[in-house]
Amino acid sequence: MTREIPDIVIGRLPIYLRELIRLADDEGKINTSSHELGERLGISSAQIRKDLSHFGEFGKQGTGYHIKYLIDQLREILHLTKEWDVALVGAGYLGHALAHYHGFLHRGFRISWIFDSDPNKIGETMNQLIVQDVSELEKAVVHNNIKVAIIAVPISKAQEITDRLVSVGVRSILSYAPIHLTVPEGVEISYSDPVIQLQRMTYYL
Amino acid sequence: MTREIPDIVIGRLPIYLRELIRLADDEGKINTSSHELGERLGISSAQIRKDLSHFGEFGKQGTGYHIKYLIDQLREILHLTKEWDVALVGAGYLGHALAHYHGFLHRGFRISWIFDSDPNKIGETMNQLIVQDVSELEKAVVHNNIKVAIIAVPISKAQEITDRLVSVGVRSILSYAPIHLTVPEGVEISYSDPVIQLQRMTYYL
Repeated sequence: MTREIPDIVIGRLPIYLRELIRLADDEGKINTSSHELGERLGISSAQIRKDLSHFGEFGKQGTGYHIKYLIDQLREILHLTKEWDVALVGAGYLGHALAHYHGFLHRGFRISWIFDSDPNKIGETMNQLIVQDVSELEKAVVHNNIKVAIIAVPISKAQEITDRLVSVGVRSILSYAPIHLTVPEGVEISYSDPVIQLQRMTYYL
Repeated sequence: MTREIPDIVIGRLPIYLRELIRLADDEGKINTSSHELGERLGISSAQIRKDLSHFGEFGKQGTGYHIKYLIDQLREILHLTKEWDVALVGAGYLGHALAHYHGFLHRGFRISWIFDSDPNKIGETMNQLIVQDVSELEKAVVHNNIKVAIIAVPISKAQEITDRLVSVGVRSILSYAPIHLTVPEGVEISYSDPVIQLQRMTYYL
């Protein structure tokens, strides 16, 4: 995997995409500019132009960006033209919330499997999905060619689950366990820990 | 607010703190080094030394860092020597998961109030807290001098709730609504949107 484009640039593209969809779908706009987008996102217009220039020429002097076109381009760049099936591991409070989260819809992802090790949870239905025994994890991932997973298990299980997912081909993992996980090269991992985010902010208090 | 130290440096301190606590509490270690810490976090030891050097001299040539001392120092720097009362707005699936999340414990935060506008939710008990009517939000924030809030409301309500929180003195907001929010200078806002994180990763798929 070449990393010619900085990861921080890639990280901003989904934010542009989200705002563009808002402009088009909620506000019915046809065109926008790096200036308008920047104003709405608190990012400089120069930064937006520079980020997008890594991938081509999307705007025109004077008229700016055609929103639907730029949305399509960003979806292609981010590989969101198909919907990714996601395996969710952990059916506790957080897994339950994720299983019911509407925010995945039309944004490239669909939680298609939920796994847990708790006999009381296995067989339970969450948003039309039946919680599967985590012992079936590898089989399901291989059989359905799953590349994307979300981990919502306790700290003590997170590395084991990560290793198991990676061993059968999962390459993008979002972990809610508040611990650093080790993954081999070629596997992307991202973390969500509310306390880490809050602690960064209390520095400024 | 002076911003002499880059925000990205501040953002790494909580990650160091979390790993140091793991080293001390779970593994019973007394000392560590920037090398060991870096290995465990996938961050270069030089980066760690440079980050910490913004705040003083914490290590000794040869023996490295005394873990408990460094933990105490980081807690002071990040203003975590007291426990911050947090107002949680939104008692849906996600709010429910957050109310039950054990990860806040001993890490500087305690969800002390939960608010919702849904009459069916108001009065409900979540992890020993009673869901309050969101119309009481301002009064509770002022009365209890709350500075930190978590927003877990739908997109359509997120800016309004943000404005209301800010108007009564909240200065650190973690938002789970998948939308960019506007806050005045001096207020920190951080976002958690699983789709944004997943989309960044599918770029590499």
